[in-house]
Amino acid sequence: MFQVIDGGVTSAKGFKAANTAAGIKYTGRDDMAMIVSDSPCRSAGTYTKNVVKAAPVQFDRMRTDNTADIHAIVVNAGIANACTGMEGLKCCRLTADKAAELLDVRTDSILVASTGVIGMQLPMEKLEAGIDAMVPKLSSDREAGHAAAKAIMTTDTRPKECAVTFEIDGKTCTIGGMTKGAGMIHPNMGTMLCFITTDCEIEKWALLEALKTSVKDSFNMISVDGDTSTNDTCIILSNGQAKNKIVTKDSEEYGIFLEALQYLTKSLARQMAADGEGASHLLEVHVKNASSDENARILAKSVITSNLTKAAIYGRDANWGRILCALGYSGVNFDPERVDLYFESVNGKLKIIENGVATDYSEEKATQILSAEEVICTCDMKDGSADATAWGCDLTYDYVKINADYRS
Amino acid sequence: MFQVIDGGVTSAKGFKAANTAAGIKYTGRDDMAMIVSDSPCRSAGTYTKNVVKAAPVQFDRMRTDNTADIHAIVVNAGIANACTGMEGLKCCRLTADKAAELLDVRTDSILVASTGVIGMQLPMEKLEAGIDAMVPKLSSDREAGHAAAKAIMTTDTRPKECAVTFEIDGKTCTIGGMTKGAGMIHPNMGTMLCFITTDCEIEKWALLEALKTSVKDSFNMISVDGDTSTNDTCIILSNGQAKNKIVTKDSEEYGIFLEALQYLTKSLARQMAADGEGASHLLEVHVKNASSDENARILAKSVITSNLTKAAIYGRDANWGRILCALGYSGVNFDPERVDLYFESVNGKLKIIENGVATDYSEEKATQILSAEEVICTCDMKDGSADATAWGCDLTYDYVKINADYRS
Repeated sequence: MFQVIDGGVTSAKGFKAANTAAGIKYTGRDDMAMIVSDSPCRSAGTYTKNVVKAAPVQFDRMRTDNTADIHAIVVNAGIANACTGMEGLKCCRLTADKAAELLDVRTDSILVASTGVIGMQLPMEKLEAGIDAMVPKLSSDREAGHAAAKAIMTTDTRPKECAVTFEIDGKTCTIGGMTKGAGMIHPNMGTMLCFITTDCEIEKWALLEALKTSVKDSFNMISVDGDTSTNDTCIILSNGQAKNKIVTKDSEEYGIFLEALQYLTKSLARQMAADGEGASHLLEVHVKNASSDENARILAKSVITSNLTKAAIYGRDANWGRILCALGYSGVNFDPERVDLYFESVNGKLKIIENGVATDYSEEKATQILSAEEVICTCDMKDGSADATAWGCDLTYDYVKINADYRS
Repeated sequence: MFQVIDGGVTSAKGFKAANTAAGIKYTGRDDMAMIVSDSPCRSAGTYTKNVVKAAPVQFDRMRTDNTADIHAIVVNAGIANACTGMEGLKCCRLTADKAAELLDVRTDSILVASTGVIGMQLPMEKLEAGIDAMVPKLSSDREAGHAAAKAIMTTDTRPKECAVTFEIDGKTCTIGGMTKGAGMIHPNMGTMLCFITTDCEIEKWALLEALKTSVKDSFNMISVDGDTSTNDTCIILSNGQAKNKIVTKDSEEYGIFLEALQYLTKSLARQMAADGEGASHLLEVHVKNASSDENARILAKSVITSNLTKAAIYGRDANWGRILCALGYSGVNFDPERVDLYFESVNGKLKIIENGVATDYSEEKATQILSAEEVICTCDMKDGSADATAWGCDLTYDYVKINADYRS
């Protein structure tokens, strides 16, 4: 019911983006981006469940919960504005006020987001100069969205974007999004920063419900390192410029919108796991036939979070004992002697365990399967009918290198 | 009330040990050990809470729970005898029967333990030949205990032992122990393999209670990689040869026994964290003034388990944001703006955060402190009066190397 198109945050009607090199922490690269809608948007956000919440998370949560109209989001990379006290919240307000002034919109219609090092204060002069530079450059071009996706990267090696179109009530609607995040990824909500724009007209509560549902099976199902960030933010803006009949929670069209949004968030989450810090493999774990949806999710996440499983995937080693072990300590009860386990990739598929014990598989064939860039591990629990999928990556020398050096 | 002595599992009266190179998986090194008491022992054990339990865990749990007298423990390294089905349990029984026959004791008085690769069956002929070789060599020498501690190592780089003596009722009692474990260490009970012997006469339920209490604040407070093993086992044997008045749970002497056992288990746990796979630093985390004992423990474990904190410690980077972040996602509620944080080592002590915000500390001095082999991080929550300590290690290239290659 939807089509995937080449696009990002500028694909939906009425959305523009811009980027600049404000010199906040990095040199020689862009580090600020803006997303602006021509007309006011309904908004919804999901944020980190970490007790330690960055200033922009506290700031945006208040605004997405309480403000009817949102016009723009201002984002910086390099400094997370987390653990910055009252001074940090003041920076959010000054940033928003500056953008509102230049865009000539209400001051409470601006959201802000930050990612980078925890504990440093933002250099406000550089941020304000960055906004000055971006506003005249705002553009709805495909390239403007792409450049914005690049500007918000930290240790990411590539930008992450996705866009889909679908029809509601004879009108073409579009959802586009971008996300960043490669480390401190174990979202208990959405991960790091994700911005989604749509021109679909949809009620605020339907928008929030669709976002929460999509996030549960996408951003909440990936892990790079088991660390939940202080800055996790996922915001969706809807400006209604597709002029469709408004989508409500109970309408038939809600299903169409949700299906498209779910595809988009899963695509972005998968891109994030594949670009995990230092990663050389994407690991996709399917848990099948678990006793409940919640248990299926817990089991799948336990496997992708296991350092030992991740190191084995890096070594192309079919060390299935570590996977069974990670299922075992997940907290979910099951009978280990019923579990079947498969490895699969473009290089083939192998049943590795049957009823908890190793099959007579070829280690050589297994290594060949695990040599592919994307590896799927399926765990059949034979304990019910619930399924879940989680995405992670391998643990490599480069993960350690990146994180031993990150601040310096 | 107790004294630390140079010793291990042969320090308590009436305990002997032996070791041999049985060629189970490794070549050119010892890989089997036995601990034998002259006289029958009361026993207590704590085992992994992983749903996937290795055969020896299932086997020993039945025996420590139900058998009055235990005489010996037979241990092998190289193969974990986990995920081995009925065949695996049969190997436990055959091993115990063989040892009982040669020692001329009841067949149900033998415990077995295994550590190593998951999913392979034990080569029974080699195990039986190993027992044949060890029984004539049993010795109560200090060196015999030390050699046994070496024989049970897998990726450990050094043996881990401790012994303490104390007086009960005018009689000198001794507790000695050895442990192994460097990876798959995130015990939800005791970790990997730990064997403790004592000549103190103590009731079975007092022994179990003392073991559980000690394990909670020692082996359950360390983590190398967040992976809880299938084989975690901690067994204590008491043969009563000190001839003291029997210690009961309600006696005054129970406190003396417990204090000595707690010291011993903490020492062994600390040694294990310091020898974590690939580790170059021991990280000791003190959580002070938390709202409850349970919360203090959860907070301390969350910090030592954080991959990002571990990588920062490797990089000697005072990246306190990651520590605050790990406290924040632990699941415990607290006010981030009250937290103080200190780093400490032989090179000095620094207050890094006060009330949730960075102090004006010297990064150079912080790096110097973090360059020591043992680093202490103190988190003052100012939220109550409960304290907890946890031990972990840094995340290094070598951890990845060891675990990408372990099976091959």
